[in-house]
Amino acid sequence: MIDINLLLFIAIILLSTKVLAIFMKRIHLPQVVGALIAGVLLGPSVFGLIAPNEVISTIAEFGVILLLFTAGMETDFKQLRDSMKSSALISVLGVAAALGGGFAVAFLFGKPSFESFFIGVVIASMSTSITVEVLQEMGKLKTKTGTALLGASLFDDVIVIVMLAVLMGMGTDTGGLSVASIAFTLLKIAGFFIFAFMAGYFINKLFNYMHRIFGERRRLTIFAIAYCFAMAYLAELFGLADITGAYIAGVSLCSTRCVESLETKVHDISYMFFTPVFLANIGIHTSFSGMMGSLVAFSAFLVAAAILSKFIGCGLGAKLCGFTNRESVQVGAGMIARGEVSFIVAAKGIAVGYIGIQLFPSIIVVVLVTVLITPLLLKAAFGKG
Amino acid sequence: MIDINLLLFIAIILLSTKVLAIFMKRIHLPQVVGALIAGVLLGPSVFGLIAPNEVISTIAEFGVILLLFTAGMETDFKQLRDSMKSSALISVLGVAAALGGGFAVAFLFGKPSFESFFIGVVIASMSTSITVEVLQEMGKLKTKTGTALLGASLFDDVIVIVMLAVLMGMGTDTGGLSVASIAFTLLKIAGFFIFAFMAGYFINKLFNYMHRIFGERRRLTIFAIAYCFAMAYLAELFGLADITGAYIAGVSLCSTRCVESLETKVHDISYMFFTPVFLANIGIHTSFSGMMGSLVAFSAFLVAAAILSKFIGCGLGAKLCGFTNRESVQVGAGMIARGEVSFIVAAKGIAVGYIGIQLFPSIIVVVLVTVLITPLLLKAAFGKG
Repeated sequence: MIDINLLLFIAIILLSTKVLAIFMKRIHLPQVVGALIAGVLLGPSVFGLIAPNEVISTIAEFGVILLLFTAGMETDFKQLRDSMKSSALISVLGVAAALGGGFAVAFLFGKPSFESFFIGVVIASMSTSITVEVLQEMGKLKTKTGTALLGASLFDDVIVIVMLAVLMGMGTDTGGLSVASIAFTLLKIAGFFIFAFMAGYFINKLFNYMHRIFGERRRLTIFAIAYCFAMAYLAELFGLADITGAYIAGVSLCSTRCVESLETKVHDISYMFFTPVFLANIGIHTSFSGMMGSLVAFSAFLVAAAILSKFIGCGLGAKLCGFTNRESVQVGAGMIARGEVSFIVAAKGIAVGYIGIQLFPSIIVVVLVTVLITPLLLKAAFGKG
Repeated sequence: MIDINLLLFIAIILLSTKVLAIFMKRIHLPQVVGALIAGVLLGPSVFGLIAPNEVISTIAEFGVILLLFTAGMETDFKQLRDSMKSSALISVLGVAAALGGGFAVAFLFGKPSFESFFIGVVIASMSTSITVEVLQEMGKLKTKTGTALLGASLFDDVIVIVMLAVLMGMGTDTGGLSVASIAFTLLKIAGFFIFAFMAGYFINKLFNYMHRIFGERRRLTIFAIAYCFAMAYLAELFGLADITGAYIAGVSLCSTRCVESLETKVHDISYMFFTPVFLANIGIHTSFSGMMGSLVAFSAFLVAAAILSKFIGCGLGAKLCGFTNRESVQVGAGMIARGEVSFIVAAKGIAVGYIGIQLFPSIIVVVLVTVLITPLLLKAAFGKG
């Protein structure tokens, strides 16, 4: 027997996210903002209708995975390859700026220097999913900016995973073990990318072959989704984020002859069921209990640091790589959103005692505000062009 | 954090169900059988790769709900109304025959008469979902037979719910309470159908109105799915099956101007993600541990009784209502499948001590065999016509 309340929750989520999204569109704001607000309203912060729940979180995670999978399929492979250098610089400068910004705010608020540094790590990684959703909504995912953003998110994922491995290694007693564990992490990442590259080559051929035999039948989409989930699983297994695996799965299909049909079908599935649950689930996991006094000020500064560091760092990176001013602003805006990687890093830091648990609400605020502001800034940055 | 193994499980389920389905089609068997066998192979009975799991079960349940929702949308409302009398007779004769058959087998195997009767109740209800999936696959859902089958499944649901309420009422000490609880059950059922009828009328108008404003945009599908889940929830709340609510939600949209677009989109979503999980999940929940000796013989006889009773009872009902011989055979075959209602009734019976827990594996065998045989018989019964 399943929990029948879930049926009601799904109904409420689908209805409220879409109604608020339509309303936002009416007042010329991104629809994503409406769906996010719906989640906050449903969650414990406002009406408390829906509590965080494993099944809903899993469906939400499937939503992000399918979203990044479609983003991968929409990628122009040549453009992605050509933008690798820019993406790397955008990512590195953004991470560096966020590290510095997080450290500075925490240090000014009297935290010890190591704890301050770790807070920098927490806000160092960006989250692509919101940016992808907004760019898809505006039809801008295939632009130079969109490709550079997706490439940069891959670097962000790798950099933060390695940093986390280094810091966690420092937590162990023996220095030797720590070096070994860092080397192991790097090896695992390299192993995943090599495997993904080879698998992608084979899968690309396989789908072209199946397309010749089956045409654009729905079974191709079923196999594609299976491949996407398998790669998401493998990425997690190798220590990376599941969405990194899903994105790479999408990229390896982006040059097949059936990619348009696949992309349309997968996007339909995620758009009409999974994405609303994913967006609402962010708000459902937001709770401001435990927020007061000095923590409010700290959170406000941390939010400012999180926004400005990525905007300036990544925008500068883009500018240095020859992007126009306008494109650099778009890149800066698109890199602001934080997501679950921040939660994961913070949770690990709390678990080993690097940062205090009382800081967690501040991380939630950073994620929520950056997630809400990114669509607005992106819409403004892309303007009427 | 979600359980990352779920990503792998979904990948394996999607791949294996579809590969075996394609293989079955090659050898001219229904694809559904392939998907069901995939589930048995993955489950604890054979390879034990995937254990029963709440998240997978919930996704599977969403799959049945969406399946019955599309069946409702595909319904010809006039035909359903006209076939109500036939459906009622098909249902009543099928339930009566199954009650008698279950009782006879259990009694011959030396069970006390009340326990024997309850075993009849366990195998009395049919499960529409497999039949719907097979008929959709063959493009026969909109035939006279298809409509009569769906109508009969509604009656089956109501009859079994009432019987269960009566029997559970008998379990309480005071006879008065039991009458009150039966009356309450009937009242709830009536209340649900009255509400569903009124809501359906309003929703039908609303979707025609939204269709005029929005056209065939995907937001209509999102609202439709929300409505379907809400009705599924309400049906459960009123003591009926969730799929009864989903089917009625579909029926109330079947005459809207946008129904074809809605039906195509919802069917795509369920076909490419949820239905494979639903079909595989049946096998994943099948376990033959505890099966031996006399239980094997009992199970074999119970399976025979379950198949013959519905085939003869429902076929006779159809014949009496003026169906041709061929159509009567189709109806008889389509009513054979048992499903989760049998598990629910059995679980309740075990909980209050009406039947022994050692009989549960036999119920599993009945569900599995009837679910596997129904597609084969349906395919044979519809033949090449």
